[in-house]
Amino acid sequence: MKQEEKEAKKAEKEAKKSEKKTEDAELKAEVKELRAHLVGLQQTVREKGQPIIVLVEGWAAAGKGSLINQLISEIDPRNYNVFSPVITPESEARYPFLYPYANAIPENGKIMFYDSGWMEDCVRKYLHRDITKDEYKKRVRAVGEFERQLRDGGYLLLKLFVDISEKEQRKRITALRENFETEWRVSNDDIWQMNEHKLFEDSYESFMEKTGKVIPWHVVDGSRRALAARDALKLLVGQIDKALEEGRYVGKPFKENFPLLKMPKLSEVDLSPALTDEEYQKELKKLQNRLHELHNVIYRKKIPVILCYEGWDAAGKGGNIRRIAKPLDPRGFDVMPIASPEPHEKNRQYLWRFWKRLPRSGHVCIFDRTWYGRVMVERLEGFCSEDDWKRAYNEINEFERQLTDWGAVVLKFWIHIDQDTQLQRFNDRQNTPEKAWKLTEEDWRNREKWPQYEEAIDEMLEKTSTKNAPWFIIESNDKKYARIKALKIVVKALEEACEERLA
Amino acid sequence: MKQEEKEAKKAEKEAKKSEKKTEDAELKAEVKELRAHLVGLQQTVREKGQPIIVLVEGWAAAGKGSLINQLISEIDPRNYNVFSPVITPESEARYPFLYPYANAIPENGKIMFYDSGWMEDCVRKYLHRDITKDEYKKRVRAVGEFERQLRDGGYLLLKLFVDISEKEQRKRITALRENFETEWRVSNDDIWQMNEHKLFEDSYESFMEKTGKVIPWHVVDGSRRALAARDALKLLVGQIDKALEEGRYVGKPFKENFPLLKMPKLSEVDLSPALTDEEYQKELKKLQNRLHELHNVIYRKKIPVILCYEGWDAAGKGGNIRRIAKPLDPRGFDVMPIASPEPHEKNRQYLWRFWKRLPRSGHVCIFDRTWYGRVMVERLEGFCSEDDWKRAYNEINEFERQLTDWGAVVLKFWIHIDQDTQLQRFNDRQNTPEKAWKLTEEDWRNREKWPQYEEAIDEMLEKTSTKNAPWFIIESNDKKYARIKALKIVVKALEEACEERLA
Repeated sequence: MKQEEKEAKKAEKEAKKSEKKTEDAELKAEVKELRAHLVGLQQTVREKGQPIIVLVEGWAAAGKGSLINQLISEIDPRNYNVFSPVITPESEARYPFLYPYANAIPENGKIMFYDSGWMEDCVRKYLHRDITKDEYKKRVRAVGEFERQLRDGGYLLLKLFVDISEKEQRKRITALRENFETEWRVSNDDIWQMNEHKLFEDSYESFMEKTGKVIPWHVVDGSRRALAARDALKLLVGQIDKALEEGRYVGKPFKENFPLLKMPKLSEVDLSPALTDEEYQKELKKLQNRLHELHNVIYRKKIPVILCYEGWDAAGKGGNIRRIAKPLDPRGFDVMPIASPEPHEKNRQYLWRFWKRLPRSGHVCIFDRTWYGRVMVERLEGFCSEDDWKRAYNEINEFERQLTDWGAVVLKFWIHIDQDTQLQRFNDRQNTPEKAWKLTEEDWRNREKWPQYEEAIDEMLEKTSTKNAPWFIIESNDKKYARIKALKIVVKALEEACEERLA
Repeated sequence: MKQEEKEAKKAEKEAKKSEKKTEDAELKAEVKELRAHLVGLQQTVREKGQPIIVLVEGWAAAGKGSLINQLISEIDPRNYNVFSPVITPESEARYPFLYPYANAIPENGKIMFYDSGWMEDCVRKYLHRDITKDEYKKRVRAVGEFERQLRDGGYLLLKLFVDISEKEQRKRITALRENFETEWRVSNDDIWQMNEHKLFEDSYESFMEKTGKVIPWHVVDGSRRALAARDALKLLVGQIDKALEEGRYVGKPFKENFPLLKMPKLSEVDLSPALTDEEYQKELKKLQNRLHELHNVIYRKKIPVILCYEGWDAAGKGGNIRRIAKPLDPRGFDVMPIASPEPHEKNRQYLWRFWKRLPRSGHVCIFDRTWYGRVMVERLEGFCSEDDWKRAYNEINEFERQLTDWGAVVLKFWIHIDQDTQLQRFNDRQNTPEKAWKLTEEDWRNREKWPQYEEAIDEMLEKTSTKNAPWFIIESNDKKYARIKALKIVVKALEEACEERLA
């Protein structure tokens, strides 16, 4: 009897072992096949210019890095990159929290793996009490917007969460800590997470629920590496196959309810206001002195300031900007002239080149032309699809709200003149050798499209003048009036911001 | 008598006052005129694409910022930028010390003002004992090379030192500290400098002497702001005038004595070495395992690693790189495919786009094609002048020495095949649908220029295989042999580096 039992047990063990062996072999074969498929796909991904983002979040010691390793194992290193964010303590962060992630998006035809990302950043800082609940909520909203905008811009976004149990995590972290060679891999944060497993679990779950509606999360079982690799590869290959088959996705426009300020139509604007030389000089001096003082406070209170200039050709943008820039400490501001995008910029979502140019907190950035090119020149010249520019109103409102949520003062100026004044200035430029360079063939071509532009601008002003990032129409038939008006608006906004914020 | 004396004194005082008044008025008029001249110049600077760097160094509280303010006051903000470096403590620096300055060079047609720069960085860290004397000397040498390379690449470089006396500095710093509004502007370093005036004076003087031979320093008297502005404006306007008149400068090639390794001519290389599948698999596994281990040590010891791949089309660069990349932790390496430069890259000194792509310390960067394009494709296709590519051997040796001085391991591979093998592989690519994309018209065109390329490559190998950054010819008629050879070289170099360095 005893002997029998023993043998039965042994047989059972053997059976289990062999089953496991078969399973392992099957898994291995499957992984191999999926990888081969992925390798085959990469050329089409490149040719079709499909950009791919794989976000790998999950528990400490769940094997995120090793999973990424398994995914990339056979891909040509020229076709992908891995981005490992350094999560800066909130006290040292000088950019919007999405900044490093937005900066790292891949160009068309490439794959970017994020080795943890905006989820870990949000959750950890919230649990650390680095950010308030209100701030956390705003960030969760921003994440949703960011992800949707990428998808609507044609990005394939796969979000993975590598899951292990509390017991498994403790086992792994303990093993890492016991070995001299691997001890350094365990951070204090990891230990804290291990000890507060439930807290983190709830937070991750809640984050995934809130951000999983548009682009779903996929939980991958991290308890067995081969299994995790198989499941992740399956998802990745499946989604790439689908994306390549369906062609590049273009998101449909939709409207969110941003509180909008009522703007007049351009045709209703009275362009007659003017200033005498004397009034101008007096006001100019006063306002510039005040702006100079405020710049110091801005700098100390680390308030980011973003001034956006758009306007008709020859409306006087340059001179207006110069009057703002003059009293500023040159160490604390930049003027960003925006021309047509370069190839590496065209190859990414259209807001990317503006993300890259954002000022550090405490600095002033003056954009000489802006992201509104999307709904003006790109719309009128057909550089993007109708869905693209129609979607942009909402996307831009979201982007600007992310900036003001970060703490930025965002002011937008439409430098306005009428057609007669423009013609006069064009002729003046043409007839003055020192100014002739300012006038191009394109200016004349744009002038012919005045009515179409006016329609686009009216729509832009109507749909994007939000309370947090308002538009101001600056009457610039008289340039002196225009400069003083813009200066006054900037001074007033900065005074309010300096008043509100603690140092 | 007494009355007479009094009157005489009064008259004298009056005379002095009126003299001072005249002088001030003259100074003001002069500054105004110079500024107007500068404003007039900016358009030509832009049209001719002349890049300009103005380095403003000097004592704390000497008025560097205010001087820059005076210089830019009338320039269009779209034509210049001001760069204020944040000098990172040596312990946190993860890039070569010239990295932030090299990254900030202006593009053609623009002016960049450096509000203090590499001089302050070097001197302060040396006096802080953050760096050794030997390290300091290397940095001074690097500064000289960096400046010369910019000049030779057509940059106008004006170096100013704003000087004030010990007494004046003490007065100004004390005044700043006594005022609540300005107190924060005085750093501990400033106070330290004030108290160690003589030490700093000697160090600045010595630095200027050592780095002033190629591009001279100009000491500007900072005791009176208007005077400093006048003098600086005069220098700037004078140098721009001269540069515009003489046309863009192209430096002449010259030879420095780098210790070079003897390299064979390509025609002498025996391309027959090969491995059996079995040998290959065995070695591959062993070497990749070792490389994986070493990558951990590299990361912990913060050793930067730069691997450079050049080679004939179809020589097998991609596959070779993949075998190196595979065992590396994807969080710690990047592959940088180098294509032809984009407009914003073409508009700057040719090494700029490589400066921008340098890895952080502890990371591995694999360049798939490199800065050696200068002496190969750019030479043969006439994309740069003869002086340009002949100068490049020396410039590149200097650049690479700056990298190895920083602590980087720099290894350069020429992946070599013969013409028959290339033809075979081209044909194979042409006849295999999955590989056809790899073959372009340009590959065939390059192939026709094989003899010219071979000559250029021989010269490159001869002139740039330095002891600190050696070339390795990788025989790649048999790709397996080539991969194992490259892996062995990398493993050996990293083992040596890990051995040498302290954690």
